[in-house]
Amino acid sequence: MRDVCIIGIGQTHIGEHWDLSLRQLAVQALKAATADAGIERPDALFVGNMLAARLADQAQLGALIADYAGWRGIEAATVEAACASGGAAVQAGVRAVASGMVDVAAVCGVEKMTEATGEEVTSGLATAADADYEVAHGVTFVALNALLMQRYMYEYQIPHDDFGIFSINAHRNALNNPNAMFHQPITPEIYRKAAPIAPPVNLFDSSPICDGAAAVIIAPLEMARGMAGIKPVRVLASTSATDCLNLDDRRSLIALEAARLSARRAYDRAGVKPDDIDLFEVHDAFSIIAALSLEAAGFAEPGRATHFANEGGIAIDGRLPISTMGGLKARGHPVGATGVYEVVDLVTQLRGEAGANQVKDARIGMTQNIGGTGATVVTHILSAE
Amino acid sequence: MRDVCIIGIGQTHIGEHWDLSLRQLAVQALKAATADAGIERPDALFVGNMLAARLADQAQLGALIADYAGWRGIEAATVEAACASGGAAVQAGVRAVASGMVDVAAVCGVEKMTEATGEEVTSGLATAADADYEVAHGVTFVALNALLMQRYMYEYQIPHDDFGIFSINAHRNALNNPNAMFHQPITPEIYRKAAPIAPPVNLFDSSPICDGAAAVIIAPLEMARGMAGIKPVRVLASTSATDCLNLDDRRSLIALEAARLSARRAYDRAGVKPDDIDLFEVHDAFSIIAALSLEAAGFAEPGRATHFANEGGIAIDGRLPISTMGGLKARGHPVGATGVYEVVDLVTQLRGEAGANQVKDARIGMTQNIGGTGATVVTHILSAE
Repeated sequence: MRDVCIIGIGQTHIGEHWDLSLRQLAVQALKAATADAGIERPDALFVGNMLAARLADQAQLGALIADYAGWRGIEAATVEAACASGGAAVQAGVRAVASGMVDVAAVCGVEKMTEATGEEVTSGLATAADADYEVAHGVTFVALNALLMQRYMYEYQIPHDDFGIFSINAHRNALNNPNAMFHQPITPEIYRKAAPIAPPVNLFDSSPICDGAAAVIIAPLEMARGMAGIKPVRVLASTSATDCLNLDDRRSLIALEAARLSARRAYDRAGVKPDDIDLFEVHDAFSIIAALSLEAAGFAEPGRATHFANEGGIAIDGRLPISTMGGLKARGHPVGATGVYEVVDLVTQLRGEAGANQVKDARIGMTQNIGGTGATVVTHILSAE
Repeated sequence: MRDVCIIGIGQTHIGEHWDLSLRQLAVQALKAATADAGIERPDALFVGNMLAARLADQAQLGALIADYAGWRGIEAATVEAACASGGAAVQAGVRAVASGMVDVAAVCGVEKMTEATGEEVTSGLATAADADYEVAHGVTFVALNALLMQRYMYEYQIPHDDFGIFSINAHRNALNNPNAMFHQPITPEIYRKAAPIAPPVNLFDSSPICDGAAAVIIAPLEMARGMAGIKPVRVLASTSATDCLNLDDRRSLIALEAARLSARRAYDRAGVKPDDIDLFEVHDAFSIIAALSLEAAGFAEPGRATHFANEGGIAIDGRLPISTMGGLKARGHPVGATGVYEVVDLVTQLRGEAGANQVKDARIGMTQNIGGTGATVVTHILSAE
């Protein structure tokens, strides 16, 4: 197995892209990434996407996007793990290069959600849950997250207001990210007064429906070291783990077992401890998931994530900055693209290119990308060279 | 990169499974494969599937199936490349093991199509074509294949009857495969009189709508050699290539460029020539695709595939037996599962366990799994140890 690194990143603005199709969004991100890496044509393309088969009636995105990028002939496939599709696609790219079967892999996460009706998007997102044992009973994906939040608040006696910090932090960080969907700061009062979506989840506990694409270029470390003008970011670990989809079968509703396992495998593979991680791009699709992920990954004791956050732990100058470019909450959550955006944001930090949001002395960082209510979790640990 | 082999295979009967859900079908195939390999629990699961998000409202099959197989916690993801999803999933499994990041990988191709309406299936299969530039004009997936067949017949002046041999051969071979969907022999007359579907494609040019699941277990060759009772089948090559989805942009309608590229890469990787291949599990979703694949892979000159077939070349005792257990035409084509069935059939042959259909002295074999009308093509070359 050879060492692997990221040599290029690219992304589109996240928002409502009425003027760009799915393939155009993807190609825009890919072209930015190949330009950044200084390469013309990768050997393989892995696409992370969750909803195109339903919302755009389009499968086989790998070949489609490879063709529109001008790379007809290269290897390509789509990787899907619900909202963890992007992370799983990055992992496929890492594997392909590590195996020696591919030299340069491009990975693109892309999703276009805003053209569809609310009903189509809600039904689409519900495919991340168990169709036979959850969705058949009429539960939506937001409602499932509401169950988790309710249980957490009850078990640890945490008032709802305590979760506001995740949204406030994300929106604050997004102010300095031109690609973020939202550029409005949030106050505790705005959070408190936000409309309920599925109580206790309110509007500001939830990430937005949006369109976007992000891309990374992966290459062998040895090759990257010989390339002029490249700051390679090493992939120390690329791991994943699973849990049951349906909440009723979980041992606990408030311990994300797959997030714990995926993180533990990543620490083992990378040879690091939670204390060594300088920043964490967390999967804050809902504020409760940010809290559960922090605890599962070992950054906070069970029941202490909101305390950790409210004591300043997650701020840019805190012990463990999270959602440093706005996270899913404010940068945006184009579902199948999110895992790639997380890696792009982390690479930006590890290169020292995060501008006003730069985490000081960031050397090692982690991303966690979560499918469903925690059924598939992909963890990446990256380091500056 | 370490050498990789297949140590276990499993499959369900192909047909209409009214009594088994998607997850149950998948687990049945996986349990047969792990029993065959003598292992309890793989480290990772790669699922090949095309239509579940539309027909079963279910995404995230990797985690779902891992859980129902009793393997909660393992790594899992779904790989999609339209009808080449199964082959692409096998490739993901091969990569994972070759990279050294995974020791034992399970791969499962699964599709359940017969519960849906004809309209749902037709719309689902059309997602393999270009939604914006083909399907928007009302063309179905069968109609696209009809265009290829019409062009081929015109260019090479081949009468439609000459394609019957592909269907006749497949149905003959399926007679001895208890897992095949069809056990009725076909005559030239039956072929000639078959109902038109999208002329010139008739009923017997087309593979059936069906349900099924197939699985393989992949491990490092060195590990397999130490396992009692295992006949490892080596993976000499696992390659893929792409072309544009939309036919109007192809350089030629009758040369499957991605099939040619994918095969050439496989020959290069394996260090073999077409002459070294003892049998070929071809993607005979339509008889025209069988012909085009034979030519693209170098087994017949352009325009000569039907001649080669009619001269006995594709029979079990011919120069290059194809569809040896019935192929997509008669064994069945549960789309996302097909690429795995092809590998299972080839492993059966290379182990010498194909019974009445055994290809004599089969040492090296090839599969080709095709997405869309040739936009993604995955090729595997395997050899007996």
